[in-house]
Amino acid sequence: MIPPDHPRYKSLVTRERLAECAREGIVAMEGLTAHGRGEAFDYLLGERTTTSAHLAERTAAAMLLTAEHPVISVNGNTVALAAKEIADLQKACGALVEVNLFHRTEKRVEQIENILKDAGATVFSGEAERLLPLSHDRAWCRREGMFSADVILVPLEDGDRCEALVAMGKKVIAIDLNPLSRTAQQATLTIIDELTRAVPEITKACTNLAEDECRELLATVNNHYHLSEAIREMTERLSHALD
Amino acid sequence: MIPPDHPRYKSLVTRERLAECAREGIVAMEGLTAHGRGEAFDYLLGERTTTSAHLAERTAAAMLLTAEHPVISVNGNTVALAAKEIADLQKACGALVEVNLFHRTEKRVEQIENILKDAGATVFSGEAERLLPLSHDRAWCRREGMFSADVILVPLEDGDRCEALVAMGKKVIAIDLNPLSRTAQQATLTIIDELTRAVPEITKACTNLAEDECRELLATVNNHYHLSEAIREMTERLSHALD
Repeated sequence: MIPPDHPRYKSLVTRERLAECAREGIVAMEGLTAHGRGEAFDYLLGERTTTSAHLAERTAAAMLLTAEHPVISVNGNTVALAAKEIADLQKACGALVEVNLFHRTEKRVEQIENILKDAGATVFSGEAERLLPLSHDRAWCRREGMFSADVILVPLEDGDRCEALVAMGKKVIAIDLNPLSRTAQQATLTIIDELTRAVPEITKACTNLAEDECRELLATVNNHYHLSEAIREMTERLSHALD
Repeated sequence: MIPPDHPRYKSLVTRERLAECAREGIVAMEGLTAHGRGEAFDYLLGERTTTSAHLAERTAAAMLLTAEHPVISVNGNTVALAAKEIADLQKACGALVEVNLFHRTEKRVEQIENILKDAGATVFSGEAERLLPLSHDRAWCRREGMFSADVILVPLEDGDRCEALVAMGKKVIAIDLNPLSRTAQQATLTIIDELTRAVPEITKACTNLAEDECRELLATVNNHYHLSEAIREMTERLSHALD
């Protein structure tokens, strides 16, 4: 039990939730370390949605709403932290939800699919094939899922797979707290915000974006702006940390 | 197997070692997340011992060498990464080595003590009592150990305990990669460097500091300087990340 008077209660509770999921095999051990890296960058962001991240979230909504075949790719960390939020986003934007894992076993895929279903998502599953030009289990996906998508939302993605998907001509929306990661640098659009803050904002935008707002957002996608704004916010916070 | 010529070989091997220790119960799941946080800040530091961290390591050696009753407090992550280095430091400075855990079970204390002993350390164990003014298992320590210490080296410490120890009048030397953490801000002296780089540097300084150097280092302890130097280094690296 984390004492509720602990100043970092929320962060520690999230960490406990991930640890519990790691013990159940849903989150990979490496997923815990990756989460910690994200925590550090979120700390530098002030653990809040910045103005530029908010714009990225609205832009992501516009991309999902106007896609022909949008897919949300889910991994262990995502389901541990935001299964319900993913289900809500699916309802708002109509994307397929597909489970794709870096540390892939059939059992983990099934566990994660079940959590998504319990949270109210409709999961696109079935036969996976090695369709992506990657070594390792990251090559697996489904022909009518990620492989055929035009827009893919990948919370917490691996850099190599992000790069491969972009090279295949897909528009990739990443949610990644590290503006220096290869994923953040490669994606079409990077939302530099914490997962459980970001997903509900995308969902909200899906329900309230007007058609002309959508068009305007799509015409001005600029990932370099989002990266440099996040870096600017972090730099500012760091440099004033001792004031 | 990670190829030794991989550019991030050391970081990846360390991560694997921690995951292995987590599976054995030596490292808490939460310890993996904490490690990830450290990784992010170390990345911003350039994964090297900075000039100011080197000075902090020599200052720590001076504090340990001149202490009446120095104690090195060890947790799961520390023993997973640096059991041998802690044993060497103990030999060089004569401090007690005591195991204190945030996620405390008798079994984990014993596992960690055994690893330290195997690495050549003399472990101060025996009856622990709830002696520190803290909720949670962090209150536990030993009357003739941490409770009686005048100087305590705490690699990877919890912020509340660091604060409580300082409030008890103890000089606390923290090793913490996050210059914004409460531990880093509360400690008497914070070494902002990665554990396996920092501990051998303290040990080396213990064996080569002259008495007048010791005096000079002790007279100029300035934690604010170390925090601001680390922040300056990180800020500089971040702000040039997109160049």
